[in-house]
Amino acid sequence: MKPDRLARMDMRTYMTGIGRAARAAARSIAPADTAAKNRALAAAAQAVERDSARLLEANARDVAAARDSGMEAPLVDRLTLTPRSVATIAEGLRQVASLPDPVGEITDLRARPSGIQVGRMRVPLGVIGIIYESRPNVTAEAASLCLKSGNAAVLRGGSEAVHSNLAIARCVHEGLHAAGLPAETVQVLEITDRAAVGEMITMPDYIDVIVPRGGKGLIERISRDARVPVIKHLDGVCHVYIDDSADLDRACAIADNAKTQRLSTCNTMETLLVARSIAPTVLPRLARIYADKGVELRGDDAARAIVPAMKVATEEDWYAEYLDAILAVRVVDGLDAAIEHIARYGSQHTDAIVTEDWSNARRFLREVDSSSVMVNASTRFADGFEYGLGAEIGISTDRLHARGPVGLEGLTNQKWIVLGDGQVRG
Amino acid sequence: MKPDRLARMDMRTYMTGIGRAARAAARSIAPADTAAKNRALAAAAQAVERDSARLLEANARDVAAARDSGMEAPLVDRLTLTPRSVATIAEGLRQVASLPDPVGEITDLRARPSGIQVGRMRVPLGVIGIIYESRPNVTAEAASLCLKSGNAAVLRGGSEAVHSNLAIARCVHEGLHAAGLPAETVQVLEITDRAAVGEMITMPDYIDVIVPRGGKGLIERISRDARVPVIKHLDGVCHVYIDDSADLDRACAIADNAKTQRLSTCNTMETLLVARSIAPTVLPRLARIYADKGVELRGDDAARAIVPAMKVATEEDWYAEYLDAILAVRVVDGLDAAIEHIARYGSQHTDAIVTEDWSNARRFLREVDSSSVMVNASTRFADGFEYGLGAEIGISTDRLHARGPVGLEGLTNQKWIVLGDGQVRG
Repeated sequence: MKPDRLARMDMRTYMTGIGRAARAAARSIAPADTAAKNRALAAAAQAVERDSARLLEANARDVAAARDSGMEAPLVDRLTLTPRSVATIAEGLRQVASLPDPVGEITDLRARPSGIQVGRMRVPLGVIGIIYESRPNVTAEAASLCLKSGNAAVLRGGSEAVHSNLAIARCVHEGLHAAGLPAETVQVLEITDRAAVGEMITMPDYIDVIVPRGGKGLIERISRDARVPVIKHLDGVCHVYIDDSADLDRACAIADNAKTQRLSTCNTMETLLVARSIAPTVLPRLARIYADKGVELRGDDAARAIVPAMKVATEEDWYAEYLDAILAVRVVDGLDAAIEHIARYGSQHTDAIVTEDWSNARRFLREVDSSSVMVNASTRFADGFEYGLGAEIGISTDRLHARGPVGLEGLTNQKWIVLGDGQVRG
Repeated sequence: MKPDRLARMDMRTYMTGIGRAARAAARSIAPADTAAKNRALAAAAQAVERDSARLLEANARDVAAARDSGMEAPLVDRLTLTPRSVATIAEGLRQVASLPDPVGEITDLRARPSGIQVGRMRVPLGVIGIIYESRPNVTAEAASLCLKSGNAAVLRGGSEAVHSNLAIARCVHEGLHAAGLPAETVQVLEITDRAAVGEMITMPDYIDVIVPRGGKGLIERISRDARVPVIKHLDGVCHVYIDDSADLDRACAIADNAKTQRLSTCNTMETLLVARSIAPTVLPRLARIYADKGVELRGDDAARAIVPAMKVATEEDWYAEYLDAILAVRVVDGLDAAIEHIARYGSQHTDAIVTEDWSNARRFLREVDSSSVMVNASTRFADGFEYGLGAEIGISTDRLHARGPVGLEGLTNQKWIVLGDGQVRG
């Protein structure tokens, strides 16, 4: 059905149809064999490779339309597929196939005094709705992670990528078909406008969880309006705290890497905290490193007394997620003040201490309430691949369900199982 | 401060004050030593025993007011404390003290190729808001579970129990004080009206999760209006399916126990499904058991052909959570039809199969999508104590975070920890 014809349909009818089909597919995919799911992923990868030219053609239509509409160059870049990125999509599908299947895993099976055995079995969440923009490869990533974890997926990509996304979906459908699994396991919306999103996030009967991937504005809007649980990713205001007892070389290497290895990621350091006693030694050295890399420093009075070239940090700087070549710098009295600062200004994403002091490391690990807490490592490690999840659907800043990088396990939950020989309750 | 004076205060100001204090206490209680938390619980238990007379006095005021207001007898019963139930409250506090502390547990610490070690540490959720009615012992249960799991608690009990709840809170505060922990770790609202609840469920800055305990209407209303995540417990439409290959004695014992051991609990069986081939043998026997216990049976045509005394079941009966001496009975063709019925009419709470067939047991365990799935055991086992959780704050019918009985672990989550020796990302 052509989008223009669909556009005339009633949106609720359209989305209810999608939802019903997803719910039905979820019941088939949840108990599917690992082998069948892996066959589907492998066949989808093959289809992507075979159809590489067609994918690039569909993508070229999207890119041309985006250029015509005056889309900014970085966004056009994110939208554009190349022969190499198409190969990466196929490789990604095979990688997800190679990950262990989380579904059906039974843990903690223990005998109880009543004679029953009680344990937990890992199960899919059901139907996962994913709302994203621009990058067409997210279609393949999200589809493969949902499929492998036994979930049905409803994917709403951006309208600017609709031809690319539908072309990728066709390859995934071919894979599902080859494995005897229902095509509706992965549905890509042909209608992508706001009204479709509005329906999608208010269908608790058909969608069990929404994962929005995009800017903070999008995520806040979806969280506010959703009647379905949302796995959210808000700010990444990440800190590195250099403790009194830090090893200087390590401190400089970590503070450098955490800020400059990539400027615009959510796990990039935005504020550097330095213990007062070590500040005169470490700050000048770091200031040179940052100056060489064009990072603007904004410091408090104590920091500026040591490195006068720093600009003045205001209260707002402590809250800022720059995602840019800017770093806020603050001198703190020690561990307590650092923990206090992070609790007040941080976003509970990723925070690191550099220290050789055993007790300070233990306290920082325990007391800093962030989804990732690190000792003597760069905040840039907060990532599904680096953590060994194989792939991630996003990073959660929620406090319930999954915290931090969300991989296959985060797309599942555990139900209780009870095994007996006729036991009844007395 | 007297409730009448508080009633004149601006509700938002009142609740914001509660929320701020809870947030501050949460930061103190999260890293508190296990020993300190246990000392607080033991001292609270002592205070309850010592103040038994005062607790009963406070409760007598609530009971008298409830009677005067014309409260129904069963509700007055739930509200009433006795010397024995006060002793049980103290015992409950000591039991929670004796449970293992979930906070700080580190699991899955693994080395990654980059040289970092990545693992997970169990951490409190933060501030937990609990909304409940009538039974004053919930105050002690909720307070102790939140405290032991390192969370701050904001407890909103029913107005009919406010004197009892505040008297219990005084004992808990004495325990917290004795252990050097902030009193605001457990706050019982003195203002209990709807407006307080309205504020409480819309303060995401101060409350991290709401656990409502009460009727379906209350929980649906709270879920609809909340701007904070809610751990919900909706229906318990539980099934027992007696498979072709069931052991008859086990089938009768389980079907009897699941329905009649207690009629009004959420894990009580509401619909019995019987495989066609075994129905003529098992149904007459069960009909006699149920008749002796005064359970009304409502069957489909096939069931009534075997036991003509049954009433006619309508479509509504398959959806019903009777919580009463009524049981819906349906004859199904076999395992597939049973799974299909449960998927369509069930509430994903607790469902059991009685079978001696290995493959059918495996399929039922895997394919039935409920928070508890059982083989050859009574649905009545779906309970935190029976599962070995020690105590439960409720049973969750959500699909994210905790499913089924929620104990200390369900009041926590896991953050990621990364341990390094100066590693940076390449």
